[in-house]
Amino acid sequence: MKEQKGTLFVLTGPSGVGKGTLLSRVLPTLDSLFLSISATTRSPRPDEQDGVHYYFLNRGQFEEKVRNGEFLEHAQFSGNYYGTPSGPIDMHLARGEDVVLEIEVQGAMQIREKRPDAAMIFVAPPDFPTLEARLRGRQTEDEAAIALRLQTAREELKQIPKFDYLVINDDLTRAEEELKAVFLAERSRTNHRTFHMS
Amino acid sequence: MKEQKGTLFVLTGPSGVGKGTLLSRVLPTLDSLFLSISATTRSPRPDEQDGVHYYFLNRGQFEEKVRNGEFLEHAQFSGNYYGTPSGPIDMHLARGEDVVLEIEVQGAMQIREKRPDAAMIFVAPPDFPTLEARLRGRQTEDEAAIALRLQTAREELKQIPKFDYLVINDDLTRAEEELKAVFLAERSRTNHRTFHMS
Repeated sequence: MKEQKGTLFVLTGPSGVGKGTLLSRVLPTLDSLFLSISATTRSPRPDEQDGVHYYFLNRGQFEEKVRNGEFLEHAQFSGNYYGTPSGPIDMHLARGEDVVLEIEVQGAMQIREKRPDAAMIFVAPPDFPTLEARLRGRQTEDEAAIALRLQTAREELKQIPKFDYLVINDDLTRAEEELKAVFLAERSRTNHRTFHMS
Repeated sequence: MKEQKGTLFVLTGPSGVGKGTLLSRVLPTLDSLFLSISATTRSPRPDEQDGVHYYFLNRGQFEEKVRNGEFLEHAQFSGNYYGTPSGPIDMHLARGEDVVLEIEVQGAMQIREKRPDAAMIFVAPPDFPTLEARLRGRQTEDEAAIALRLQTAREELKQIPKFDYLVINDDLTRAEEELKAVFLAERSRTNHRTFHMS
């Protein structure tokens, strides 16, 4: 058995759907699956390390990388840049290793255009009221912020048919098994694996 | 969450590759996955029950069903007919249940033409010498019979690129996990599952 080029997985879904939790549970159970690290111009929080949680760059550095085409996608939120560097991803893929990146829906759509062979996974809540209850349950945001998140989520959920997989995060254990199955099954696809007679 | 129409899985691979063993281990671990039962004109063995191991038909019954287009595929081996009845399969699929059928490679290729949306899984040995060793290890066939099986297997293995998935049966536990992942992941595909807001 020989594995060919690795698979790029893009995991997305509305804010509050639990995609980070899901991914952090599945990642340690799989070999040769690497989490892509984003770059940002925001300041590191006390517990964050450069090259582990993010690549921390200043605006000049970030903008130069944008000009050099070094990002698969990038965007600004709250005055800071965030982006997905393509270099480390392509290095893993060339080695036959898989890479997963967790990203918001708009960024995922950008990557879909550039990498049509990526396996696109959407994590959704069981239904909209459940998402609303989860966001309100956090109690860290005011009503206007929650309303904005919900409006965004509503638009994002309309994009589901453009994705390859839909994992419904109703029960964490079940959703975890399903997400892991997607990673494993993609490795078995004949466009990623060939048979050698001898 | 609502599941749409079920998925038809076609599991194939050369004789002696262990596809039956694999399937018998995975089937009990999955809900809503039904094994398709073949029809045949050969006589039941003492331990075989009609409607469980096979639908046992006489030649007249079988040929009438062929004329009525009731088989997804059929073939003759050693003077007996074997076929895959489409009726029970379509009944399960319409209910949103998945169906798997275990079949030899030629039959699988026929089904691929008729049901382009079927998920096609090929089970292969780690390499050709391993398959040869397994077939010889059975010690139930003469050299001519083994040589014919190996020649057939060689041709069958060339068909792998026409399949969706390749499961290499090197280690039974690993192959079992991989096959189960294919069943689960296909259920998560957005062409089989939709999101409902409320």
